Amino acid sequence: MEPKAPLDFYFDFISPFGYFASLRIDAIAAKHGRTVNWHPMLLGISVMKVMGLKPLLDTPLKGPYTSKDVRRYARLHGIRLGRPPDAPMMNPLPCGRAYAWAQRHHPEQAKPLAQALLNAYWVKGIDLSEPSSLAALASFTAPQAGQALNAPDIVMRLAPISGAGLVAAVQSAGAAQLLRDAVAASLAAGVFGSPTIIVDGEMFWGVDKLAQVELWLERGGW
Amino acid sequence: MEPKAPLDFYFDFISPFGYFASLRIDAIAAKHGRTVNWHPMLLGISVMKVMGLKPLLDTPLKGPYTSKDVRRYARLHGIRLGRPPDAPMMNPLPCGRAYAWAQRHHPEQAKPLAQALLNAYWVKGIDLSEPSSLAALASFTAPQAGQALNAPDIVMRLAPISGAGLVAAVQSAGAAQLLRDAVAASLAAGVFGSPTIIVDGEMFWGVDKLAQVELWLERGGW
Repeated sequence: MEPKAPLDFYFDFISPFGYFASLRIDAIAAKHGRTVNWHPMLLGISVMKVMGLKPLLDTPLKGPYTSKDVRRYARLHGIRLGRPPDAPMMNPLPCGRAYAWAQRHHPEQAKPLAQALLNAYWVKGIDLSEPSSLAALASFTAPQAGQALNAPDIVMRLAPISGAGLVAAVQSAGAAQLLRDAVAASLAAGVFGSPTIIVDGEMFWGVDKLAQVELWLERGGW
Repeated sequence: MEPKAPLDFYFDFISPFGYFASLRIDAIAAKHGRTVNWHPMLLGISVMKVMGLKPLLDTPLKGPYTSKDVRRYARLHGIRLGRPPDAPMMNPLPCGRAYAWAQRHHPEQAKPLAQALLNAYWVKGIDLSEPSSLAALASFTAPQAGQALNAPDIVMRLAPISGAGLVAAVQSAGAAQLLRDAVAASLAAGVFGSPTIIVDGEMFWGVDKLAQVELWLERGGW
């Protein structure tokens, strides 16, 4: 039997719902014999430049609702959040560039790195707006197989990626270009929000759609 | 034991997801001994005027996705749609005014009337942009208890509301004011999207949130 195609998972590091989905998507896929390719995207490009909308949290009515919704989802799923969802967001570019760079140059470490960065930002509350902030790589955490993805006290070696190497990479023109390419590819795929999951060509937007993603995997569509 | 407070359900007649939620919300509430108060709201006011966003279907990337999402939801739940979700929307004011007017003057018939109007628009594909289009009241359908809400061939007496009476009401200043008041109340409650469900002060936006609404009712919050 041919192996089934991987799922595509698009996320922005500053998206709380993207973070939430990152904690579940691989397990959901694995139940159906699938793996997941993680792709960076940038809400600042899709939402503001392409769609012409303002940032979610700056939107009247919707902003306050979203903050509550984030907290409510976290409570329901037992996810600890190390930063208030309505605090000013970090600059997502260093994380996005780090991840895009790792995908190309250290593909085995790329997903653990993304998980470590998400964990640092969302659980530990570390602002990663500056490339230099990624130097403290050893203090970041990423889950090991079988560990709770949201645990605060797990440490994983991301070797051969070093903190210093990551800082240099994030400041390189190459990493910036890799992220630009990834964002262009996300837009070409029609992705506008975080998280977005594509299963066999079918797109699902939002963490609330994970139930439909599971059903789609189970039934092979409807 | 004191009866539990009713749920509040806010919807716009032109919202497909509002229509979908209208087919399930009373049954979900009933399972937990609750009733549902239906409230009209207007996306044209909340989304465009208050939030400063453009209409969903006119939004790049999100518009095409939403059309697909509507069709996918309808297929999953076996809901027949009599109009393409990406066709130009009707003017929602006559329906909104009719419903706001019925709430005040014929409260017993108000919800069946709303269901009949939703059914006429979404299942039969009848455009209700003009007050006169509501004259054909007898050809509208609303479900009777135990009937499938989405059935195309059910007819219900909305007496004492007559087609002619409805057309006159919809054109009255009183109905316009009742709808304005209802929309102002929806905004005061923080409602910005359709559907919105409020359970004991807790707000849920979107048909994808019905699972959380059920859980909230079951657990009494978390």
